Amino acid sequence: MTVNLRVPGPTPSPAMVLEASGQQMINHRGPEFRDLIFRLTDNLKTLFATTNDLYILTASGTGAMETAVVNTMSPGDRVLAISVGVFGDRFTTIARTYGADVVEMKVEHGKVVDPDDVRKNLRDDPTIKTVIITHNETSTGVTNDIGSVAQVVKGEFNKLFLVDAISSIGSIPCPVDAWDLDIVTSGSQKGWMAPPGLAFVSVSSRAWEAYEEAKCPRFYFDLAAAQRYLERGQTPWTPAISVYYAMDTATKMLLEEGVENVFERHDRVARMCREGIKNLGLKLFAEESVASSTVTAVHVPDGVNGAELATLMRTEHNVVLAGGQASLEGKIFRIGHLGYCSEDDIQDVLDSLQVVLPQVGFKG
Amino acid sequence: MTVNLRVPGPTPSPAMVLEASGQQMINHRGPEFRDLIFRLTDNLKTLFATTNDLYILTASGTGAMETAVVNTMSPGDRVLAISVGVFGDRFTTIARTYGADVVEMKVEHGKVVDPDDVRKNLRDDPTIKTVIITHNETSTGVTNDIGSVAQVVKGEFNKLFLVDAISSIGSIPCPVDAWDLDIVTSGSQKGWMAPPGLAFVSVSSRAWEAYEEAKCPRFYFDLAAAQRYLERGQTPWTPAISVYYAMDTATKMLLEEGVENVFERHDRVARMCREGIKNLGLKLFAEESVASSTVTAVHVPDGVNGAELATLMRTEHNVVLAGGQASLEGKIFRIGHLGYCSEDDIQDVLDSLQVVLPQVGFKG
Repeated sequence: MTVNLRVPGPTPSPAMVLEASGQQMINHRGPEFRDLIFRLTDNLKTLFATTNDLYILTASGTGAMETAVVNTMSPGDRVLAISVGVFGDRFTTIARTYGADVVEMKVEHGKVVDPDDVRKNLRDDPTIKTVIITHNETSTGVTNDIGSVAQVVKGEFNKLFLVDAISSIGSIPCPVDAWDLDIVTSGSQKGWMAPPGLAFVSVSSRAWEAYEEAKCPRFYFDLAAAQRYLERGQTPWTPAISVYYAMDTATKMLLEEGVENVFERHDRVARMCREGIKNLGLKLFAEESVASSTVTAVHVPDGVNGAELATLMRTEHNVVLAGGQASLEGKIFRIGHLGYCSEDDIQDVLDSLQVVLPQVGFKG
Repeated sequence: MTVNLRVPGPTPSPAMVLEASGQQMINHRGPEFRDLIFRLTDNLKTLFATTNDLYILTASGTGAMETAVVNTMSPGDRVLAISVGVFGDRFTTIARTYGADVVEMKVEHGKVVDPDDVRKNLRDDPTIKTVIITHNETSTGVTNDIGSVAQVVKGEFNKLFLVDAISSIGSIPCPVDAWDLDIVTSGSQKGWMAPPGLAFVSVSSRAWEAYEEAKCPRFYFDLAAAQRYLERGQTPWTPAISVYYAMDTATKMLLEEGVENVFERHDRVARMCREGIKNLGLKLFAEESVASSTVTAVHVPDGVNGAELATLMRTEHNVVLAGGQASLEGKIFRIGHLGYCSEDDIQDVLDSLQVVLPQVGFKG
């Protein structure tokens, strides 16, 4: 009985990736691990489209967000925090937790940030040192136009720019060097098709300059320790070796498919998902022009109980959907289509919805 | 070609554990994961011999040490840091990184701390709030007598007591409640026979009282977030699901073997290892009365190149040993015998050493 796991991470892993992850342990301070970490780091740099430093942390994506903050900020630093949903709010909270003086820029759920508004904020407040943002907001199913925002943040104002690309990079174009992004984060359980447990951070020379002045306390997430150990093919603390195995195989598969083909597949599957949802008479939560290629958010129709819908989808059709988070709980449901996902997987979701929707009182 | 991985973590995983870890991903906010985390938490509490709260973090053991510090301390807190080696030094550094006012108590490498010296320190300095210590020091192969130290720290002085039991608990007796230990940490790649990626922290009600006053910044490692989510069978951030699978199977195996039998096996294998080492004419690094049951440290004999010895053991005999760390680099080598390890595994190490030692110039 195969489950169609359609939450926006953890994503299903291909059989080859699972098989790789079940391999026996090795010495994390030996030659086999050195080869593995060098190879995986290289693959990730290619997929991040960067020549920046890149570090692999044993943590979930949130750990990578904390890494971005504590390695570049000092208490009192003025930070513009752009949030279009739950994960933007999380980034904001992390910066505030470590003492940043945060200017919040909150965008209505379902919409993305307007680069002109970013420009206005940066013009009005020259004390802002750093801008933090989410590339792809899984809680609402939108993708910020980071390329255009970067032109403002970096091109016009030359600020430090930290990007949570956890659920985008590798699935949606996010060329780190072309866009001049200082820190970019991701996590293994997203488009990478691997189990959770590893997080990735690319670090520009500008971010390293910020590191030199940053006074936030840090130990586990200290990037200088990661740098020092990577030089000899190691990590400072014991790494999640099974997830390295999985990522090694998964990145190889992505590179074989070809990064442009991977992007095209995500775009195609996402469009098919949105069309199918509309054809069922359901309403998309996000404006379609900014809708995400990795997750689709759908309004729970009036009179329908979202929890009941999700339960029937799971128990009767083996389709696992995600609900809404925080203020959107019960108001939307979400279909993940990132990583190892094809049209067939989405057709199965749509077919199952067609059966379940009338059962939960949807009149269509 | 089976490799005999004899570093003190990562340890080899039994085939059943590896197989479990290769299972497909599930929704970390769904009912299957809820059952899994509740079951694993219960198993771990049994193996920690505690009714305290216990949390599973996606991190390596060092992350759990940081968790112990940032959730109980404020900058300026007076902390007695007992160190008998590299991992004690690491705990000290973490406390200092987060602003603790540390009184260092360093013990000569190869020896353990004398509870009378701890008493003297606590008597001399009543401003000490917290004591931190390593139970089993893998860098030197010794085990502190935590039971006796706890009688002083808790019984006589009623201080907060944080114990790094990363490489001991589950393999060497460390009954958390009987010894009244406030925070105890471990990591999945040690005696637990699972891949690295998860860390464990038990938290007493006294530690929760300290939490209320602790002002260190914390987000990823915030125990209140872990507590809030565990109530509904979740983790705040995406968990390393494959390692949960592995730990689920591994803890079941340990409970089936019986915790007393597991301790007895570790003790027996360690004694056999030490006898074998002495019979080869080699010298143990630690005093035998305090030698660890999970790792044995051995002097590199005069005139022998430790790196050459390790390389030959690995390339010619498929035995992977650990070298010395920090100031002990090149001076000792270490044999891990924790977790999935039997007399046969150690006999193989001894047999291989017998062949390799003369090849690297050891006269015996």
